[in-house]
Amino acid sequence: MGEANAERGENALIRRLEALLGGRGVSVPFGDDMAELLSGPPPLLGTVDTITDGVDFLSAEHAWRDIGYKAMAVNVSDCAAMAVRPEAALIAVVLDNRLSMDDAMALLAGIKECADAFGCALAGGDTNSWDQPTAISITIVGRPEPGQAPVRRDGARPGDLIFVSGPCGGSLLERHLHPRPRVELALALNRRLAPRAMIDISDGVAIDLSRVCAASGCGAVLAAERVEAAIHDDARRRAAKTGQPALEHMLHDGEDFELIVVLPTDVDRAACSELGLLPLGRMVTGRGLRLERAGRDVGEIAPRGWEHFQ
Amino acid sequence: MGEANAERGENALIRRLEALLGGRGVSVPFGDDMAELLSGPPPLLGTVDTITDGVDFLSAEHAWRDIGYKAMAVNVSDCAAMAVRPEAALIAVVLDNRLSMDDAMALLAGIKECADAFGCALAGGDTNSWDQPTAISITIVGRPEPGQAPVRRDGARPGDLIFVSGPCGGSLLERHLHPRPRVELALALNRRLAPRAMIDISDGVAIDLSRVCAASGCGAVLAAERVEAAIHDDARRRAAKTGQPALEHMLHDGEDFELIVVLPTDVDRAACSELGLLPLGRMVTGRGLRLERAGRDVGEIAPRGWEHFQ
Repeated sequence: MGEANAERGENALIRRLEALLGGRGVSVPFGDDMAELLSGPPPLLGTVDTITDGVDFLSAEHAWRDIGYKAMAVNVSDCAAMAVRPEAALIAVVLDNRLSMDDAMALLAGIKECADAFGCALAGGDTNSWDQPTAISITIVGRPEPGQAPVRRDGARPGDLIFVSGPCGGSLLERHLHPRPRVELALALNRRLAPRAMIDISDGVAIDLSRVCAASGCGAVLAAERVEAAIHDDARRRAAKTGQPALEHMLHDGEDFELIVVLPTDVDRAACSELGLLPLGRMVTGRGLRLERAGRDVGEIAPRGWEHFQ
Repeated sequence: MGEANAERGENALIRRLEALLGGRGVSVPFGDDMAELLSGPPPLLGTVDTITDGVDFLSAEHAWRDIGYKAMAVNVSDCAAMAVRPEAALIAVVLDNRLSMDDAMALLAGIKECADAFGCALAGGDTNSWDQPTAISITIVGRPEPGQAPVRRDGARPGDLIFVSGPCGGSLLERHLHPRPRVELALALNRRLAPRAMIDISDGVAIDLSRVCAASGCGAVLAAERVEAAIHDDARRRAAKTGQPALEHMLHDGEDFELIVVLPTDVDRAACSELGLLPLGRMVTGRGLRLERAGRDVGEIAPRGWEHFQ
């Protein structure tokens, strides 16, 4: 919910929603990237995400095709986060009456471009319009690969190793408009390495890792040297403009749509390298995120993230 | 889309959407009450419907609990229309920041009340807010009963008999706030009588029957005597206020959430009576809806419907 009422707002609502909806006895806890719709095997999972003009995107600045692509991609990335293959989508749009027919078709073409790129069928939807800003709600259903379970965010344990699936930071420069959710990598990881926990990086490495920590009841320590080795070139270019350290951009920028992957200490490190995973640190007992350099604690990492689509 | 741009609007958009999404080779054609998400057996079907404040409901006039109940019920009724059991739902709400926490919880409680009444799990969702009117988007997934296929709206043939699952008209007086979608009846009908086509009455008997006709490539003739026998008491009470014939209210009021059921001529009529079906007329070759009285044509029935939630 809006910032003005953040306290009474979204978090409080989600807690009350959890109380209202909880206790279904399903295999995926409330609050993960996808919800369990039907029990398995294999279970059917679903995710829904609504983005709205003026909050999550700015139609005055972004092309409708990009907005459509991204609306779909953020949902596909939720599937990647749980190692679920996106199989079919339903699209519900409430269009601003001021949109032209070409705008509406560009929006749908962008959604279809992304769906096609990830092999997800666009099964149907609901179109409405009103004299208010556009809202786009996309639901995707999918299943893990045969014999696999979805990867939750609450399975990390102290001692586990933390990896990221690629360099992060600075997505705002360009990449954020055309994210490449890591679905195939997620499926391969689940098949080969059985991750303890996984999440996609939508809001930022620090805040999304803190969600894994909160769900798993652990803390995390990141090694500055490792984090620096996982800084995206875009983060360095952005740092040159903002005057902030590139490491800050790596940890907090968001919209990378890479995966944070938590693996047991005895994981096959060669397989990790082969799959392109970059080590960042380890899960620990306790709470919160801390940074260390040369093995010495150098302070807390604030779990703050980037606001979408700015 | 809005009335001001109806021509360029929703119908044109839906046609272009169909061109964009069509050709998937699934068993349920684009445009039915639900879309096929995964092939079977049994197939998984899904439906999504968005309702918005000021268009589909008026939060100044209706209680948030009723709005929530109805938002869920219209989707459950889409499941009934295809003889699909609603199994799990995802809720996406974009709340007006002016809502109180109690309003938001009442909305969710209404959604849950309806979900519980129909045995549909609320699996999860997405909550957002903005400084615009509230939009509520609900996705339901479900399957037909084992061994059954979903009932489409395009299977009617000339000669088939048209029934309605209960008296219609005048729902505005009260019933429209707390609809009772006919899920169990739909499942029993599919099991016992294998309907050729089915649709739920959301916008009105005439307009929803015209959709069955259009999808099936037939026309329909209704017998005035039969229609009169299926007039709801509420339609008579409303007619007394509006000065319109009760038959007009029966045909055009909408929001009855009963079923229009098309059955072959050799159907077991005793079973039809036992299941509470009321005969209305028959499918014919050609197009459009006509009314006859004492076997004589007395004119066209306009396929106009009621606007939601007024």
